[in-house]
Amino acid sequence: MHRYFFYVSPGKIQNDTAILEGDEFRHCIYVLRQKTGDEVSLFNGRGEVFTAVIDRISKKYCECRIISTEKINKPISTDIVLAFGLIKSKALDLLIREASALGVSQFVPLLTQHSVKQGFNSDRMQKIAIESLKQSGSFYLPEIHEPVELPDWLDMAANVPVKLVAEQDHSISLQTALTKQIDHKTVAILIGPEGGLHSDEIESAVIKGFTPVSIHPYRLRTELAAIVAITGIYAYIN
Amino acid sequence: MHRYFFYVSPGKIQNDTAILEGDEFRHCIYVLRQKTGDEVSLFNGRGEVFTAVIDRISKKYCECRIISTEKINKPISTDIVLAFGLIKSKALDLLIREASALGVSQFVPLLTQHSVKQGFNSDRMQKIAIESLKQSGSFYLPEIHEPVELPDWLDMAANVPVKLVAEQDHSISLQTALTKQIDHKTVAILIGPEGGLHSDEIESAVIKGFTPVSIHPYRLRTELAAIVAITGIYAYIN
Repeated sequence: MHRYFFYVSPGKIQNDTAILEGDEFRHCIYVLRQKTGDEVSLFNGRGEVFTAVIDRISKKYCECRIISTEKINKPISTDIVLAFGLIKSKALDLLIREASALGVSQFVPLLTQHSVKQGFNSDRMQKIAIESLKQSGSFYLPEIHEPVELPDWLDMAANVPVKLVAEQDHSISLQTALTKQIDHKTVAILIGPEGGLHSDEIESAVIKGFTPVSIHPYRLRTELAAIVAITGIYAYIN
Repeated sequence: MHRYFFYVSPGKIQNDTAILEGDEFRHCIYVLRQKTGDEVSLFNGRGEVFTAVIDRISKKYCECRIISTEKINKPISTDIVLAFGLIKSKALDLLIREASALGVSQFVPLLTQHSVKQGFNSDRMQKIAIESLKQSGSFYLPEIHEPVELPDWLDMAANVPVKLVAEQDHSISLQTALTKQIDHKTVAILIGPEGGLHSDEIESAVIKGFTPVSIHPYRLRTELAAIVAITGIYAYIN
């Protein structure tokens, strides 16, 4: 039998009570028709999985009593921070879905010279990420930031030990860049939007300690470049 | 100025004349409004790029006279044969598009126990691949096979030196599998459809010389697994 997992935000868990709400609640109660007394599996997106019993169902949420908690370790020890120039909505959905399935830790959508000017619905992105975790079997929900101006993020990333920017020209290979580094706890990778980063933007990143790396010999669209970069990082740090 | 490249199938090139037809013809003549006497850039999908002049335009094709030929070497020396259980059309489009951008050499759609039963329009897939090459800057068009039954393909792949099947359990890492091998000229990777390969199918592959490899700690959808496998292969053979 397939075991369903429902996401409960950590803020909705107090002592042994978890409040299931929103889409997860509707899926559990209206689609899968779980009832009071039924056992459900919950996860908090931080590696904890709960076995719980539905105690009370109201119209918009249900209360679950936690019976046991299991801690699932991260299979990949490196945290990847994926910062990317904002792209069109279809490509963005794909990027969030695929990079979540691969275990990225943080998404940072960036406002850059060539990024698309559009709203960024972080709730919607979180839903896509949750769906993707359920499919991939990961219990770690990535943090999804609100869009930020590139220069601001370059400052915010100051303390990240390994900082890379994907760039085809004048760059070293991802492998060379990563084997030079000793501390792989957190790796930040910056990927341009469609149309790329402006040379001024790459220069500012370099000034702030980013290493330009080539992730593939061909020109890749943002979402594909992100996947290739993530996979490459996992490959070279192990 | 952006330089447009039009794909001409190698069969449509004789001596110094190339016949541009189909979508490529329409894009060149009707969308970009090229005229007799204009210079165009053509590629044959085998690494040759031609500078040519439009000699004659008829309703459904145009004749171009080749002025010069440039041979572009493959930036990646390993040929990857991507064999995959047939998946739904949207995921299939994505797989063809992304794997083409990454430089895969051959696509082999497979009929397996869990593969979707649907038509496979290889002309349409080729169009997606051509578009993807233009975007990525690759001049090597992958070969797209017609769907084949898995057991038949296992026989057909007998002479491929490195044969891998993506499998989460009872498998070694992609890295271990590849570093064991000396000859990396061609690597075939077999990826299951949604729902995976049946254990019998994996067993038959193993009997035929395939090594089960784990490509990622999480469960990935077919198209994402394909991209991750391709990227991993490039990472570990270099």
